[in-house]
Amino acid sequence: MNIGIYIYEHAEVLDFSGPFEVFATAKRLQSAANISQVFLVAESTSPVIARASYSVNPHFSIQQHPHIDVLIVVGGIHSAELQKPQVIQWIKHTAAQSTYVASVCTGAFLLAQAGVLNNLSVTTHWEDIADLREAYPNLHVVEQQRWVEQGRVITSAGISAGIDMSLHLLTTLAGQLLAIKTARQMDYAWQPD
Amino acid sequence: MNIGIYIYEHAEVLDFSGPFEVFATAKRLQSAANISQVFLVAESTSPVIARASYSVNPHFSIQQHPHIDVLIVVGGIHSAELQKPQVIQWIKHTAAQSTYVASVCTGAFLLAQAGVLNNLSVTTHWEDIADLREAYPNLHVVEQQRWVEQGRVITSAGISAGIDMSLHLLTTLAGQLLAIKTARQMDYAWQPD
Repeated sequence: MNIGIYIYEHAEVLDFSGPFEVFATAKRLQSAANISQVFLVAESTSPVIARASYSVNPHFSIQQHPHIDVLIVVGGIHSAELQKPQVIQWIKHTAAQSTYVASVCTGAFLLAQAGVLNNLSVTTHWEDIADLREAYPNLHVVEQQRWVEQGRVITSAGISAGIDMSLHLLTTLAGQLLAIKTARQMDYAWQPD
Repeated sequence: MNIGIYIYEHAEVLDFSGPFEVFATAKRLQSAANISQVFLVAESTSPVIARASYSVNPHFSIQQHPHIDVLIVVGGIHSAELQKPQVIQWIKHTAAQSTYVASVCTGAFLLAQAGVLNNLSVTTHWEDIADLREAYPNLHVVEQQRWVEQGRVITSAGISAGIDMSLHLLTTLAGQLLAIKTARQMDYAWQPD
């Protein structure tokens, strides 16, 4: 299983570094686990300036990257991304070919725009619940949950909720024991809800 | 107050991105708050390959950076850093000139090596408690605490504990209301201990 995390200008730092930490730690703890690679994907391989001028170098571009089994789309200031047909098309195409699709925070808007969330129960950052409902009326937008699982599609609440959602995904991919060990290694008070 | 976070090759990703997220979010929420800049500092401004090949671009080098009021030294595979006299000297010098000094995870070894922790109660990642005791017998190494505060010096436990410690530091710098708002914005279940 390859974990691909889509990032972009003004993405929220913890939205991508939290899930990255979870899967990288899991891979380190148990090389036999079902995780091959964890990588960041962006429009190009140029440095991405995330929120507050945090500059990170994507491993791959959307033009060329290894097969993605688990696609994670992160939040932040996402409005410019919604206007990029090639990004939305890439999300749509990659989501269709992946085994699991997930969003953190306002990453749900990008999945919705790509048609991945049609008619599903979903969630996002508490501040953006009303906007998500209004923009995509065919979604059932849920509040007060760390993440919402609908088969192979999982959306999570704000920023740090991406860590909990990733630990849950890890349970699905490699078993609860590894998820518990990973949370313990990260000293993270995970509630496996 | 400028927050400077020291990073290095094989630093743990969440050790620096967690505190960065806390202070950047706090700055965004309240521009009047007592936080001017949040930045990453490394030996040079070349990309730093943190753990699991996560590549990040430091804002400044240890040779040239704005004044640091709050120095945060992160953990990871820290053993190579202990062997670098110029890094340890920089930590010693910068810590002496800063208002607060903090470590996340095994960053405590670097602060100890720089003589910043002499005779203090401190903590580190649960896996490294015994090593820290053995390497620096003049420290009082405490277990089972998210962070340990000793005047202007705060050490925190493993990886995600850096987020809790940063929220606590934020309380000291700018008041508990902003810390609570920041945790809420990050959707983080902070226990202000």
